[in-house]
Amino acid sequence: MTTAQGLLWLLPFLDYASVAVFALTGALVASRAQLDIVGFIFIASLTATGGGTLRDVMLDRDVFWIVDPMMLGVATLAAVIVFFAAHLLESRYRAILWLDAFALAVAVPAGVAAALGQGMGWPVVLIMGMVTGCMGGLLRDVVCNEVPLVLKQGELYVSCAFAGGVAAVLAGLAGVEGGFALLTCALVTLTLRAGSLVFGWRLPVYRPRPPRTLPPKR
Amino acid sequence: MTTAQGLLWLLPFLDYASVAVFALTGALVASRAQLDIVGFIFIASLTATGGGTLRDVMLDRDVFWIVDPMMLGVATLAAVIVFFAAHLLESRYRAILWLDAFALAVAVPAGVAAALGQGMGWPVVLIMGMVTGCMGGLLRDVVCNEVPLVLKQGELYVSCAFAGGVAAVLAGLAGVEGGFALLTCALVTLTLRAGSLVFGWRLPVYRPRPPRTLPPKR
Amino acid sequence: MTTAQGLLWLLPFLDYASVAVFALTGALVASRAQLDIVGFIFIASLTATGGGTLRDVMLDRDVFWIVDPMMLGVATLAAVIVFFAAHLLESRYRAILWLDAFALAVAVPAGVAAALGQGMGWPVVLIMGMVTGCMGGLLRDVVCNEVPLVLKQGELYVSCAFAGGVAAVLAGLAGVEGGFALLTCALVTLTLRAGSLVFGWRLPVYRPRPPRTLPPKR
Repeated sequence: MTTAQGLLWLLPFLDYASVAVFALTGALVASRAQLDIVGFIFIASLTATGGGTLRDVMLDRDVFWIVDPMMLGVATLAAVIVFFAAHLLESRYRAILWLDAFALAVAVPAGVAAALGQGMGWPVVLIMGMVTGCMGGLLRDVVCNEVPLVLKQGELYVSCAFAGGVAAVLAGLAGVEGGFALLTCALVTLTLRAGSLVFGWRLPVYRPRPPRTLPPKR
Repeated sequence: MTTAQGLLWLLPFLDYASVAVFALTGALVASRAQLDIVGFIFIASLTATGGGTLRDVMLDRDVFWIVDPMMLGVATLAAVIVFFAAHLLESRYRAILWLDAFALAVAVPAGVAAALGQGMGWPVVLIMGMVTGCMGGLLRDVVCNEVPLVLKQGELYVSCAFAGGVAAVLAGLAGVEGGFALLTCALVTLTLRAGSLVFGWRLPVYRPRPPRTLPPKR
Repeated sequence: MTTAQGLLWLLPFLDYASVAVFALTGALVASRAQLDIVGFIFIASLTATGGGTLRDVMLDRDVFWIVDPMMLGVATLAAVIVFFAAHLLESRYRAILWLDAFALAVAVPAGVAAALGQGMGWPVVLIMGMVTGCMGGLLRDVVCNEVPLVLKQGELYVSCAFAGGVAAVLAGLAGVEGGFALLTCALVTLTLRAGSLVFGWRLPVYRPRPPRTLPPKR
């Protein structure tokens, strides 16, 4: 992981991309809640910065949008665009799902890169990937009273973030150059999430016990 | 902004006032949920300190109620008063709305002052005003399962905090002395919120697209 | 409180125990939501680390599971066990209630010890006991859309954490040795919570005002 510090130059780009795309999803959720334009900006910013803020506070780094307030401008711009253009969409919910998938695929490597840049070991790297990827959307859904995507039954979501993080860690161990490791992370995350949306890929969910008249099974 | 440090003496007063009034709103929401007295104190404290705590953690300042635990005494006292006196109110929901408006009008300048005191630029100043003003009430409503005031359709809420922050920033740029800038911030916030409650002032909300048989319109 | 620093050696044990037991409750809630195994691990980890993470961020300590990532292994193991064994339980909800009671009784002294170790005064000590004890379960319930245990009417919950914290502070003032003070804290918390579950112990809840035809009463 001696090249870990070398990844840090990528971090602002990943953060910009995830801020922009998560902000679009936040603004679309705001459109479903029929908020005004300031409400769009508020929910877009909460979604866009929530995961990364939590990551930075827990890692005791300076919060990324305080270091670079232009991030807030990106989120605001995305919210304004959605406010005037969301009616052009065929299905807003479908757009939320797919934009959220792309945002997840950029935010997970952003979390991974930040944790590696702080010299963290792999368990913390994995968690920071998941936190950065999942928490913004979770905040968006809890505040707007949507069913959290994180909890949708029969879909891969946290699992994609987890697998992306694992891919990055394994690539790092295999000596892959940092930028490629992050690219691998993004591709694995996106592929799994897209596969879940398109083909219904899933992990087995917890099954409640069978009726008592049947013999117990695992 | 060279006088920004000079604002810091005002911050404890603003924090005290917003803690006291937000705690009243939290306790009133607890009375709607029929909690016991410790539940009143818990929700009152969460509401009263939530926004400021988030602000301080993100700005990497010492958390204000850890520096001055008397804040917790103020929130507790407010909760106890409401526990014994809430039945005297004609309409608890009306009281929550108005107290929340006053708390918002004090908390926004408290957030603005804290960010200025840390030497932040105007985008972060605006956000910290909004965070300090809106997050305590948002936490209160999410935890107690009320419809977040932040999201009530057809009302100004986050917009008031935003406008108050803008007023403070503009006043600062115009060379207004710090204390007056914060007073301006409070007045703008309160006026807009009160106007929304009394006269129904609002921004246009997002309109879903018209039925497909009509020609598309903006 | 000169022996407060001496308590710090106990903290990892308390943290391990509360992580393990809270993780079990989180995984059981995940089983009620029928998530997949990564969802189990996610909710278990959120529940297990939420309160302590908030405590550490507010006290400006290093986050406990970043310092000791083995904590995450404990939470993961607990989630996996529940994933394969939850169907053996007679009543998952009953198990959640009781495991949560034990976790509360370990997490409150963990919060108290951490605050004492930072040299905090008693108000902050009390709050950190309550935050560490209650916030993980609150996050679990808000995210999974269960009625927060914190808010269940006619039950002691936050009150148990509060009483446990008071017991620890009083024991400390009375010169009781640190380890015993924490044991007292755990026992008081557990006894009150168990008494509430078994015997229905409670504090008087807020009563809405009587119908207007009756004379007002307190």
